[in-house]
Amino acid sequence: MAYKLKKQTIVLDKNPVSIKSFASVVGKKESQGPLKNNFDIISEDTKFGENTWEKAESKMQELVLSKAIEKANISNDDVDLIFAGDLLNQCTASSFCAKKFDVPFLGLYGACSTMAETLLISSVFVDSGSVKNAVCMTSSHFCTAERQFRLPLEYGGQRPPYSQWTVTGSGAIVLSNENKPPYITKVCPGKIEDLGIKDANNMGAAMAPAAASVLNAFLEDTNTSVNDYDLILTGDLGRVGSDLLYELMDKKGIDIRLKHQDCGLMIYDIENQDVHAGGSGCGCAGSVLTSTILKEIKDKKLNKVLFMATGALLSPTSTQQGQVIPCIAHLIEISNSREGVS
Amino acid sequence: MAYKLKKQTIVLDKNPVSIKSFASVVGKKESQGPLKNNFDIISEDTKFGENTWEKAESKMQELVLSKAIEKANISNDDVDLIFAGDLLNQCTASSFCAKKFDVPFLGLYGACSTMAETLLISSVFVDSGSVKNAVCMTSSHFCTAERQFRLPLEYGGQRPPYSQWTVTGSGAIVLSNENKPPYITKVCPGKIEDLGIKDANNMGAAMAPAAASVLNAFLEDTNTSVNDYDLILTGDLGRVGSDLLYELMDKKGIDIRLKHQDCGLMIYDIENQDVHAGGSGCGCAGSVLTSTILKEIKDKKLNKVLFMATGALLSPTSTQQGQVIPCIAHLIEISNSREGVS
Repeated sequence: MAYKLKKQTIVLDKNPVSIKSFASVVGKKESQGPLKNNFDIISEDTKFGENTWEKAESKMQELVLSKAIEKANISNDDVDLIFAGDLLNQCTASSFCAKKFDVPFLGLYGACSTMAETLLISSVFVDSGSVKNAVCMTSSHFCTAERQFRLPLEYGGQRPPYSQWTVTGSGAIVLSNENKPPYITKVCPGKIEDLGIKDANNMGAAMAPAAASVLNAFLEDTNTSVNDYDLILTGDLGRVGSDLLYELMDKKGIDIRLKHQDCGLMIYDIENQDVHAGGSGCGCAGSVLTSTILKEIKDKKLNKVLFMATGALLSPTSTQQGQVIPCIAHLIEISNSREGVS
Repeated sequence: MAYKLKKQTIVLDKNPVSIKSFASVVGKKESQGPLKNNFDIISEDTKFGENTWEKAESKMQELVLSKAIEKANISNDDVDLIFAGDLLNQCTASSFCAKKFDVPFLGLYGACSTMAETLLISSVFVDSGSVKNAVCMTSSHFCTAERQFRLPLEYGGQRPPYSQWTVTGSGAIVLSNENKPPYITKVCPGKIEDLGIKDANNMGAAMAPAAASVLNAFLEDTNTSVNDYDLILTGDLGRVGSDLLYELMDKKGIDIRLKHQDCGLMIYDIENQDVHAGGSGCGCAGSVLTSTILKEIKDKKLNKVLFMATGALLSPTSTQQGQVIPCIAHLIEISNSREGVS
């Protein structure tokens, strides 16, 4: 039986929660970055053959979901549930994708934390025996996100140096109850945190406290230290947010610098691709995890990884009404071994 | 162990999933309808003391969450997880509420199906033993929804006769693993359905096929008939959607008329409150369930109820881009007995 460990952490100790397959899709800019050889699907066309950016984002989800199902060597009928979400108003990228697959669907909203949130919830479903195969999926698109959260691209507004570039990309993972590594072994849902930041361009700084909060809770709950993990991976803190996370962890006497990487700093060549403080969006964590990190875990280059995706739960309306940016992070432990769990 | 029954239905057969407490809050118009004596909290002020409608909606969630926790006779610290969602862009009503409570939070988006979606997901968490106490919550507000999905109120647009009135209200439920009725005994996540409806005013008709789909799947999975239940409750199909649901079920040879009620037809005096085809919004199902139906189950006036909340997963952007309205419904079986489950 899965059980709650001390404060926040849930240990998945009943059925194995196995990462059966994973797939990634990205756009042109991402295909020119350091991870260019890792993605399953690349499109030179930012609209992915569709006539709007929103439809393009949905199309990315369709492509990546089909690919993940194909790589799992199962059919659509074998998928018991799709857990998906995105950044668009009312999560339409996910709904319009799920419409094309005849599979029960649960929509989630965690902003850029969505890849971790879908993994967290579906892990509990698989662990409990409620489902056999579940899909976790998320996406973001530079052009939909800019018009959603900031300004229409046509306006040509200047971006401050601490702003980040929303990744055009999507990732999908098939979880199953097979006893085959890698596994999801523990999950830790986060609390909402804010340090009073109101600038919708300064996402990294806004989200760092949420990452620090859930990481501290998890380390305390499990009585472990950063040295117990090969990698502590954040979703899209970027340069500003990563530095702030180090500072916040330093205050607890924990130095994560040597173990930490951020998907937002991995996906682009920060110095030469004009993305300012790094990549962002739920497709950032989604596509880096499913193209690069899970491969390294499968190849045993990494064996125990903490994946924390952070999300800024603002809306254009809340920003216009002068509200702060409430942020959240959820943590997923991915391991090649179920030792200490089962 | 919870297990998936045939196609879609999950049977909660491990730990009991008990409805420990529930609370409701509504605005002025709802307090003038037929259920006026049932709500826990009523506000004559549509802004609930706040300076924007969005903040008012968040405030409703704060009020109802505090009330539900108080009625459960527990403290905030005893709540392991909050599952919540609403209709606003990026679900801000829920995030800004959860910010005030120091509790892990998972945001969901199922449009008007959200009350059922939060119950579905949190039930699996409680059944699996992952959490002890979980809160399920949702809200909607007439003024935020109109400007979100249709036209700003100031525009004074005319509403067609098949349109519905978004309920200003919120409902919260505390689930726990105590062995005390009423219980959630089975849950059935729905698939996305559409019959090609594109008119954002015609929600009831758009959503009816999703309700028919999940009800048929559940009855088939469990090999039961409508006569096995005291009530089949939909969230907000209204007059148009309810009639269409009857037609769709008739085609399967199933007559649900004598067992069916719709929260959207219960909350207002349809003839005299100028709400056209009935109430809608996730606060409609949320507040009717937590004010009226759960009380009747607790008082044994009803013993076995199927609660299906339907959601229209459109956004203003998808409507403007001429897309159809993808709809979904999730089904929850609420019973005073765990017979046949545990």
